[in-house]
Amino acid sequence: MPPSPVPAETFTSPWPAAAARARGRADKREAVLRTAVRLFNEKGFHATSLDEVAERLHVTKPTLYYYVESKEAILFACVEIGLEMVREGIAEAAKSGGSALDKLRACMRAYASVVTRDFGMCVIRVGEEPLPADSRRRLRALKAKIDHEFRSLIEQGIAEGVIAPCDAKLAAFTLAGGLSWIGRWYDPAGPLDADTAAERCIAVLLNGIVPRAPAAKRAPKPAARKARA
Amino acid sequence: MPPSPVPAETFTSPWPAAAARARGRADKREAVLRTAVRLFNEKGFHATSLDEVAERLHVTKPTLYYYVESKEAILFACVEIGLEMVREGIAEAAKSGGSALDKLRACMRAYASVVTRDFGMCVIRVGEEPLPADSRRRLRALKAKIDHEFRSLIEQGIAEGVIAPCDAKLAAFTLAGGLSWIGRWYDPAGPLDADTAAERCIAVLLNGIVPRAPAAKRAPKPAARKARA
Repeated sequence: MPPSPVPAETFTSPWPAAAARARGRADKREAVLRTAVRLFNEKGFHATSLDEVAERLHVTKPTLYYYVESKEAILFACVEIGLEMVREGIAEAAKSGGSALDKLRACMRAYASVVTRDFGMCVIRVGEEPLPADSRRRLRALKAKIDHEFRSLIEQGIAEGVIAPCDAKLAAFTLAGGLSWIGRWYDPAGPLDADTAAERCIAVLLNGIVPRAPAAKRAPKPAARKARA
Repeated sequence: MPPSPVPAETFTSPWPAAAARARGRADKREAVLRTAVRLFNEKGFHATSLDEVAERLHVTKPTLYYYVESKEAILFACVEIGLEMVREGIAEAAKSGGSALDKLRACMRAYASVVTRDFGMCVIRVGEEPLPADSRRRLRALKAKIDHEFRSLIEQGIAEGVIAPCDAKLAAFTLAGGLSWIGRWYDPAGPLDADTAAERCIAVLLNGIVPRAPAAKRAPKPAARKARA
C-alpha cells in the first residue's frame, strides 16, 4: 500500500533542513573551539590533548575531527577569532567622538577587554608561536593592523597636542605590551574585575607613574585649544 | 722493549685533564643552547628541529644528545638563563643609589636590555608555555620574583613620594608588559639600537603619553626632598 499522502505544508522531514544543519554544525564547531581555548589558556597548548577536549564535550575524538582538522587548526581559529575581536573592538572605538586621545583610550579599553576573555587571552598566552610559518605570517599581518591603528591615533594625538611628542611607533608597541600583559596575569576567577584591571593599566600607560604637578598649577595647554578648533 | 721512561714533569697526556674536559663540555653545551635559542627566536620553538641545531654546529644529532637531553630541556635551560640574567641585572640595578624611582629606572633598563638579547628574547617569544607543568611552575616562580622586585620598588617610590599613588601590583605588571613586549618587536638587525628602544619605552612607562605641564610651572615635589634625606 502506498503511504498516505501528506499535504505539503504539514510535512516535516525528520532530517534538519540544510540551513539548520549548517547552523548546528557551526554551533558545534564553536563549542569545540571554546572548550579547547580554555584548556589552552589554563594548561598551555602543548599540555592540552584533543582527548581532553573531546572528554569535556562528552564526544569521542573522531567526532571532533568532523568539526576541526587538527589541534593546530583549532589554535589558528582561536587566535584569529581573538585578533578579529580586537580589530572589531578597535574599529568601533575609533568611531567614538572626541579627540585622538579619547579615541585611543577607547581603543585601549577595547583591547584590554578582549585580552581578559577566552579567545583574546589565547592570543597573548599561546599566540601563533606553535603554528607553521604560513599561519604565523597571516596572524602577524592581523596583529600589524592593530599596531598600526594605535600608532595612527598616537600620531593624530601628537598633531592635536593631546599626546606628548614621542616616537609613535614605539609608544604604540609599549601601550600594546602593557595591555597585552593583562592577558597573561589576569585571572577571571580572581578578586579583580576585568574593567578595573583595564582602567588601572590604562591609567599607568596614559599618565605614567611619575607624579604630575597638581592640575591647578598646570599651565593651560595650547594644544588642547587646537584640538577643539 | 719497555717504553723509555719520561720524567713526570714533562709528560703530557693526550687526553685533556678532567677540569679542562668539564670546561670543554660546558662550552659545547653553551654553544648548543646559543644556537638553539637563536633558531627558537627566529622561527619559533616548534618550527625548530634539533637536526637544524646540529647542522648549524656541524655535528650530528646524536652528538647533541651528549650535551642536552631534549628540545624541551634546551628550552628550559634557555628560559632559565634568560630569567637569571633579568634577576641578576635587577639585583645589580637595585643596588644603585638614588631614590626608589632611580632604582626602578635602573631595573627597567636592566630588564629591557636582557629582553633584546638572545636568552631574554626567548623568555618573551617562546617562554615556558611549551614545557611540562612542573618546569612551567619552576620558571613562573622565577618570574614572580622579578615582578615582586618591581612591585616593591614602586611601593617604596610611592612612600617616598617619587611615584604617584597607584595599585603597585598592577603598575608592576604594566611596566613588565611594556618592557617585555620589546622582546617581541625588537629586531637586533634593524636600524634602532637596543638602548634607544629601551629608553623610549621607559620614557612612555614613566611619564605616560599625556602631555605634562612645562617643568618650570611644576610645584616642587616634597617627596624629592624626602628621598634625599
